[in-house]
Amino acid sequence: MKKSVAISIGDLNGIGIQLALENHNAVAERVKPLYCIDTTMLQQVAQKLHLPIPKSFDVIENIAPHFEIRPKHIDAHSGLYAYQSFLKAVELAKAQKVDAICTLPIHKKAWELAGVKYKGHTDALRDIFQQEAIMMLGCPQMYVALFTEHIPLRDVADKITVEKLTLFLVDFYRTTKPQKPIAVLGLNPHAGDDGVLGNEERIITKAITKATQILAQKYFDVTFFVPYPLVPDVAFTPKVRSHYSHFVAMYHDQGLAPLKALYFEEAINVSLNLPIVRTSVDHGTAFDIAYSGTKPNAKSYLNAIAYIKGDV
Amino acid sequence: MKKSVAISIGDLNGIGIQLALENHNAVAERVKPLYCIDTTMLQQVAQKLHLPIPKSFDVIENIAPHFEIRPKHIDAHSGLYAYQSFLKAVELAKAQKVDAICTLPIHKKAWELAGVKYKGHTDALRDIFQQEAIMMLGCPQMYVALFTEHIPLRDVADKITVEKLTLFLVDFYRTTKPQKPIAVLGLNPHAGDDGVLGNEERIITKAITKATQILAQKYFDVTFFVPYPLVPDVAFTPKVRSHYSHFVAMYHDQGLAPLKALYFEEAINVSLNLPIVRTSVDHGTAFDIAYSGTKPNAKSYLNAIAYIKGDV
Repeated sequence: MKKSVAISIGDLNGIGIQLALENHNAVAERVKPLYCIDTTMLQQVAQKLHLPIPKSFDVIENIAPHFEIRPKHIDAHSGLYAYQSFLKAVELAKAQKVDAICTLPIHKKAWELAGVKYKGHTDALRDIFQQEAIMMLGCPQMYVALFTEHIPLRDVADKITVEKLTLFLVDFYRTTKPQKPIAVLGLNPHAGDDGVLGNEERIITKAITKATQILAQKYFDVTFFVPYPLVPDVAFTPKVRSHYSHFVAMYHDQGLAPLKALYFEEAINVSLNLPIVRTSVDHGTAFDIAYSGTKPNAKSYLNAIAYIKGDV
Repeated sequence: MKKSVAISIGDLNGIGIQLALENHNAVAERVKPLYCIDTTMLQQVAQKLHLPIPKSFDVIENIAPHFEIRPKHIDAHSGLYAYQSFLKAVELAKAQKVDAICTLPIHKKAWELAGVKYKGHTDALRDIFQQEAIMMLGCPQMYVALFTEHIPLRDVADKITVEKLTLFLVDFYRTTKPQKPIAVLGLNPHAGDDGVLGNEERIITKAITKATQILAQKYFDVTFFVPYPLVPDVAFTPKVRSHYSHFVAMYHDQGLAPLKALYFEEAINVSLNLPIVRTSVDHGTAFDIAYSGTKPNAKSYLNAIAYIKGDV
C-alpha cells in the first residue's frame, strides 16, 4: 500500500505551492499526499498561478487565518500560515494518521515576523520531540549528515568529543542502515597527517571504534563504518565517493559545499532520529521566480517524496 | 615564440617520467620543454617502461647520483634525485634560462628519507626566495587560492586578520588579474548570518575593502573582488560559480574539497607571488599504477603546461 504523507505547504508567497500543484500527479503515483492548506487559500493561489487544481488534491482545512497572497513578499501572515501548516503535518504524523511528512520551503524571516520562536523546521522538531534530530542532506548518489550544524567554525573542534560523536554515529547508522560502510570525515587538512596538522582525528577514530562495538552487539556481519576518518578534500573525489553512500561531516560546510557543488538541484533534507519521518526540499522559497510563469525545478521535491516511499 | 619550461622530473619510481615521455609531443607543441634528468637515467627508465625516447627530448645532465629504479618504492636515492631535479629547474628559472618551471610529482616521504628539509615544493620555494608564495589550485573552470594551508582547523579563525588578508588579496589580484571579480569566501556557515554564526566575515569584508582601495590606486576601472564574503557552501553551486573564475578560500578543505569533487583529474597547482613562474600537477606519484602498463591520465600535466603557455 502507498504511504501517506502530510505535505506542509510552506510560504505561500514563494514557489512551494506551485511545486505541489505542478507535481501532484507524479507525487500521487508514489505516495498518498495530504496537503495542509485550506481550500479557499488553495483556490486563491491556483488562480494567481493560472494553474488548475488537480482532482485528487486532498487537503486539510482550518490551518490558519486566511490572507491575501503577495507574491515574492516576506509577510507575517504568510509566515504564520506556513508555520501552522507545518504544525498540522507534525500533528498528523504524531497521531499516526500519516506515515511521514514532507515540508515545502518556508521563509525564515517570515516566521520571525509571525513571532515563531524557531529558526526553521529542524529546530522546531528538536523542541517538539525533545530529541537530538540528526540533519542529513543529499540525494541518492550521496547523503551527508552534519555532526555540528549552525555554529561558528572556530567552535567546531571543541565540540568533537568521543562520547557525543559515538552517540551520533550509533544513531546515524541505526536510522539509515546503508548498504555501504558510512564514511566519517576527518576534521583537519589531510586528516591531520598523523597528528602534525591536528589531533581531532584520534578522537574521531576512537568514536568510530566505540560506535562499532556498540552496534556490533545488535547487528551482525555488518561493516558499519570506514574504520578511520577520511581525508576531507579527497573524500568527495569521484573514485572515493563511489565507494560510499553516506558521509558524516564534522561541520556544516565540510559536507554541504561538496554536496551542493555536485548535486545542488537534487538535494533533499532529512530529519533523522525522531519519532516521525520528515523530509524536505533543500531549497528556499525562490521569491525571484515565484508567480512569474517560470516552472520551478522539481528534482529536490520529487527526491524528498521518493525518500519517503523508500526508493532511495 | 614558444616559452621555455624546465621540467623537474619528480620521483622516478612513480608516474612522473611516464607522463613526460608519453606527452612530450603534446607538450612540445605548446612550449619548449627542458627536462631535468640525466640521459643515463632516462634510458634506464624508458627501458623499464618499454617506451621510446622522443627525438627532441632535451635534457640537462649531472642532476644527481644515478641509481637503480625500484618501481613503486619510497627510496632515498629517488627522493634525492627528485629534489636535485627540482633545484636544477629553479636554478634555470632564477638565471632566466627558462621562462617557467613545471614540477612532476615527488614523494614527500622519499624527500624526508633523502634528508631534504622541506615538506614539498611550495615550502622549498618560500624558503629559497624568502617570499610569501600563494598556493593556488584549480583548472580553467575554477581556481582556488588558499589563505591558510597546512594548519589545524582550530587555528584557522585566529589567522584571519585585516592586515594579512589585505596583503594576500592585493598580491593575489596582482599576480592573476582575472577577467571576472575574485570571489572571497566567508569563514562560517551562511557566511556568519549577520554575525549570529561568527564574526570573521567582518574582518574579511574590511580586508576586501582595503585591498580594493590599494589596488584602485594602480589599476583603473576594475572590479577586483565581490565586495562581500560569499556563503561557502553556496559559492560552488553551478550557477554561482559560473560568475567567477578565481576564489579565495580561508582554509585548505574549504577550497579543495569542492574543487576536487568537481575537477579532480584536471586540477593543477600554481605557486604565485614568486620571482619565477611555477606550475605543477595536482596529483601524487601514483605508485599503484607506476610501471604497470597503465597510461596515467595527463589532464593535470597538460593543464599545468597550458597555464604557462598562457592559454588558461
